[in-house]
This record gives sequence, C-alpha cells and structure tokens, in this order.
Amino acid sequence: MKGTVLYGPGDIRFEDRETPKIIEPTDAVLRLAATCVCGSDLWPYRGLQPIDGPTPMGHEYCGFVEEVGSAVKSVKPGQFVVGSFATSDNTCAHCRYGYQSSCIHREFMLRAQAPFLRVPLADGTLVPTPGGMPSDGLVPSLLTCSDVLGTGWFAADAANVKPGGTVVVVGDGAVGLLGVLSAKQMGAERIIAISRHEARQKLAREFGATDIVAERGDEAVARIKDMTKGIGADSVLECVGTQESMMQAVGATRPGGYVGYVGVPHGVELNGEQLFFTHDHLHGGPAPVRRYLPKLIDLVLNGVINPGKVFDLTLPLDQVAEGYRAMDERRAIKTLLRP
Amino acid sequence: MKGTVLYGPGDIRFEDRETPKIIEPTDAVLRLAATCVCGSDLWPYRGLQPIDGPTPMGHEYCGFVEEVGSAVKSVKPGQFVVGSFATSDNTCAHCRYGYQSSCIHREFMLRAQAPFLRVPLADGTLVPTPGGMPSDGLVPSLLTCSDVLGTGWFAADAANVKPGGTVVVVGDGAVGLLGVLSAKQMGAERIIAISRHEARQKLAREFGATDIVAERGDEAVARIKDMTKGIGADSVLECVGTQESMMQAVGATRPGGYVGYVGVPHGVELNGEQLFFTHDHLHGGPAPVRRYLPKLIDLVLNGVINPGKVFDLTLPLDQVAEGYRAMDERRAIKTLLRP
Repeated sequence: MKGTVLYGPGDIRFEDRETPKIIEPTDAVLRLAATCVCGSDLWPYRGLQPIDGPTPMGHEYCGFVEEVGSAVKSVKPGQFVVGSFATSDNTCAHCRYGYQSSCIHREFMLRAQAPFLRVPLADGTLVPTPGGMPSDGLVPSLLTCSDVLGTGWFAADAANVKPGGTVVVVGDGAVGLLGVLSAKQMGAERIIAISRHEARQKLAREFGATDIVAERGDEAVARIKDMTKGIGADSVLECVGTQESMMQAVGATRPGGYVGYVGVPHGVELNGEQLFFTHDHLHGGPAPVRRYLPKLIDLVLNGVINPGKVFDLTLPLDQVAEGYRAMDERRAIKTLLRP
Repeated sequence: MKGTVLYGPGDIRFEDRETPKIIEPTDAVLRLAATCVCGSDLWPYRGLQPIDGPTPMGHEYCGFVEEVGSAVKSVKPGQFVVGSFATSDNTCAHCRYGYQSSCIHREFMLRAQAPFLRVPLADGTLVPTPGGMPSDGLVPSLLTCSDVLGTGWFAADAANVKPGGTVVVVGDGAVGLLGVLSAKQMGAERIIAISRHEARQKLAREFGATDIVAERGDEAVARIKDMTKGIGADSVLECVGTQESMMQAVGATRPGGYVGYVGVPHGVELNGEQLFFTHDHLHGGPAPVRRYLPKLIDLVLNGVINPGKVFDLTLPLDQVAEGYRAMDERRAIKTLLRP
C-alpha cells in the first residue's frame, strides 16, 4: 500500500509503505473508510515542532475491521469502528478514572493517513457503531469522533460548560468550531466565538455561536468583558495552544470560572502569581476521546449533530499533500481524505 | 494606640499609630480579641517580597465591634465578629459566584497586628458569632477562620477532596496543617502529609494525617507514587508557593486529579506543555474565606474542630517582633498575639 510520510517542513509524500498486519494478539487491522489532516499535524508540517527523520502521519480514523489478533474480544472482522487517536487498555486505574488518554499503555496513533491501519489495544481503543454499517453520508461525522470532535467536547467538558452558561471559544480551527457545537449540546446559553474569517464565523454560528468577536489578544479580552457586564465568561475553551491564545483564555474567564485547554501548548509559560490572582480553574490535556466515543457516535447516528461539516475539502487520499497545503494556507478548515 | 510596622527585612517595630476610626459609612472599627502572624508575612519579613517603605502588618483578626458607620446594617457594637483577610461587598457578581476574595471592591487587609482595626465593607466582610460572646478558649480557633483555616479549607475544596479520596498535603506550615484538618472533615480516607519536623508531623497526625512522607521534591513524588500503587493522589493541596512545592504537587497528582494551590506563588512558572500531559486540574488563589466563614465558625463553636492548636506560641501583642522571629526560625508553627 501507499501511506503518508512527512520528510520535513512542507514536504509531505504519499509513498510505498509496508501494509500493516497483526503484531500483538491485542491488535486489529482496519481498512479505513476515511481519514483526515489534523490541526496538530500542521505544527511539524510548518517546522514548528522538530521531527526525527521521515515520520508517518495521521491519527484520525474510522473504517472496517479487516483482521483481529487472537486476544481481541469486543470487535470482529467486518464491523465498522471508530477509535481514539490515543490507544488505551480501558482497564487500568487511569482509564477507569476517565482518562484513557493517560492510560499506562497509551500510544499516540500514527500512520492513519493510509488505506490500512494497525490499531494496538483494539478492545480498549475501538468502538463499533451499533446497528452495523452506517450510511456513507455519516462517515465524515463519525470520523470527527476520533479526535477533533472528541477534543472539542473535552474542551467544553474541562471548561465546565453548564446549561445557561456563558462560553468563549478561543480558536476558529476545526477543534474550536466543534467546541462551539459541544458547548451548544451542553446547554450553554451564550457562545462567543473568536474569529475573523467569514467562512469560519458562518460555521460557528451554524454550530451554535450567538456572538462573534473579531478582535484578538487584549482587545478581544476587553471586548468580552464589555459583552459580559465586566464579569467575564463562565467557561473558556482554549483551542490553539500559543502563549497569546492561552492568555486570552485566562483573561476572558471570570474569577472562579473555568478554562478548558486542548490546543497542544507550544512555548506556553504560565506565571504562577498571575494565574493565582485570576481565580481561574484550569484543566486540559490530550482529550480522553475513548470516554466520549459511545455518546458522540450515538449523537451522530441519531442525527442530533453534524460535526462532519468541518470538512470543507474532500480529496482522494493520494492527494494528501494538497490537503496539508490547503489547511496550511487556511484555504480549508479541515481536509477529509478518502482512500 | 501602638501597632506593628515592617521597616525592612527582619525589622518589625511596635510603634505609635493613629487609632483607627470610621472613615466610610460602610466601615466598622473592631477592638481585637486576638491577631496573629501569617506565613505570608514572612515573605516580606525575609526580604523575599519588596515593600514600599514602612508597612503596617497583619490581616487575621477577630474581636468586638466598637463602632460602625451609618450604612452598616448586619453587625452592631458589642458583637463578636470574625472577618476575612480580604474585604468584600458580598453582593457583586464575583461574590455571588462564591469568589468574595475577587470582589470588585476587594481590599486586602493590613494593620491587624494592633489592638484596634478599621474594617471596610463591614456588612460583606464580617460574620458575627451566633449566640453572643464565645468563651475565651475558643478565640484562637475562631481567629484561624479569618485566614489560615479558611485558606486550608479552600485548598482542600479547590483540590476537590471527596469522601474516600487520597489526599497529599504539600507544606507543613499552619495552612498545610489545617489543610489536613479540612481534608479530614471532607471525608478523605487517606491523608499523606509531607513534613520532616517532628512537632508538625505530630500535629498533622492529630488533625487526621494517616501517613507522613519526609522526602522532598522528586523523591517525595516517587514515594507518593509508591504508596498509591503508581497512580498518584486524587487531590493535592499546595500550601507553600515555591517552584519546588508546586512541581511536587503537580507530580503527585494522578492524571485527571486535582491540585488546589493556596501558597502565594513566588517565582513559580508553569510549563504549558508539561502541565498539559499531566491531565491535572489546577485551581487556587486567595481563599474566598467569606464563603466559608459561617460554616467554619459553626464547626468551631460546636467543638467539631479545634484548629487553634496550630498556635504553639502565644505572646502579648507588644512582643510581636519575637513572634515573627520564632516563626522565621521555625521555632513556632504560628504565633498568636493578644492585645
């Protein structure tokens, strides 16, 4: 088969790779129905995160179980499954506490931008869709459960979004947009999205944003304070991962309010004394997608949510390089790839 | 009257000051029954926090209402009251959200190491003891509600201490020791106190500690991991405020667990990426003592808790300089001062 490999900044190649096979008895091999490019793939693509030689890419996936190892019990060949970007045994103390993305056996997935994928710890990582094969139209939305929706959902959960609350979402990438959708599902009354891109503003409104703020940095914080009678937001979702976006999130939160941060921090330093006097709650990290998968799959299959709308570009998998370029140049919010 | 003034590192003077009087109609003037020296007073006393000229000291207090301004409604002369170290109107949005120590009218108290004290925003800051004058033996415990107990309680609350949980307390000062007491009250099953001082270990056990760890830094973290089957603690109370203590707290917490931090951070920097992968919840700040005062006063008056035991040195107020010295040299855990 062919698969996606990053050779250096801007250098994505779709090249011959070994077709994956079962290695451990707990593995499954999937034939993917769809995969995609993640905002976090852009950090190394842009040279902002070092890579250690040619690196196979991709960690969002859904598709058909092709083969399972001898120890796999909960999924079987032919089933349609969605899995987390982080593998988990789903039995250790961290998994049972709801933090499967800190599983003692966690591996971060790679190699998913390919037609076939080996998934370790299949029983604890994959969730089959109930009712058999979903319609092809639902595949993009099911794919989002694997990371981008699960991560937006965790941001809202970590930010303690409650019915009636006021929420700010920092970041208008796919995670931020699905953070808006998640906050809406959790009953937020007011959802303020920070964006200066028309197409993203439009999608944010479609997903439930009630207000758009086009300012950035301190000006955005001042604007949000104005909009909330000087109080600040109950919940702020940080979906970028830069120093500026984190400070914006902390600044927009009311004393005693909550920041949920899911943008992988790059160069972020928090001053302890400054944070202390904000009275903010802070929680985040790699989203425990496995915890949310059954619920999110259910919401998709029942047509309650349509998170697949974040894909505004669909390409055949062999055009993956163009998929990266379009996202890098912000021509696309998120690229879906079809093997 | 005479009052306490810090002139520079190690230079505490008890000298003539103007006797406080009502300035704003919302003020009260108290005749103090007791005051004390706070761990946070030691930062400027040790020259680790700059002062801007001679600085009147003291922010923990309880005593009798001597006089009230014309707008004061909820306290009256002759009542015995306890107040927070942070004033609050107790009506603004932040107060109603439970964060009175971020009140829009907040002032941090000063000048309480004196026989008389003016308290602004008396209605929102002071709580009278029900049932009139408490017995003199309860005064030390009532005094702790003003800050040190309220702060230990907030640390436990911010660290989400729950019945049956495993708790670590970093810091064996008076706040840490009362953090142990608070965690016990909240139903923690296991309370691990970090201390290498015999007297403090003993008091920690008396307050409810089930285990003592004498190691520090990374060794303490390794020891706690050992004691918790490699998992870490559900809740960690950070009651010091240094980089080392904060890293110890973060390191001892299980993924998805909670750090409550109340030691005023001095030079603490948190690396965003490192924090991200811990999955810790982080919450802290100046304790919203006013929120807890009615409950804490009730626990003291009913003899459920005896937090006054943290005072292992009692001096007449005019010997305040010795009170600072004894705490600085760790000869005393906490000094009670009687006017």
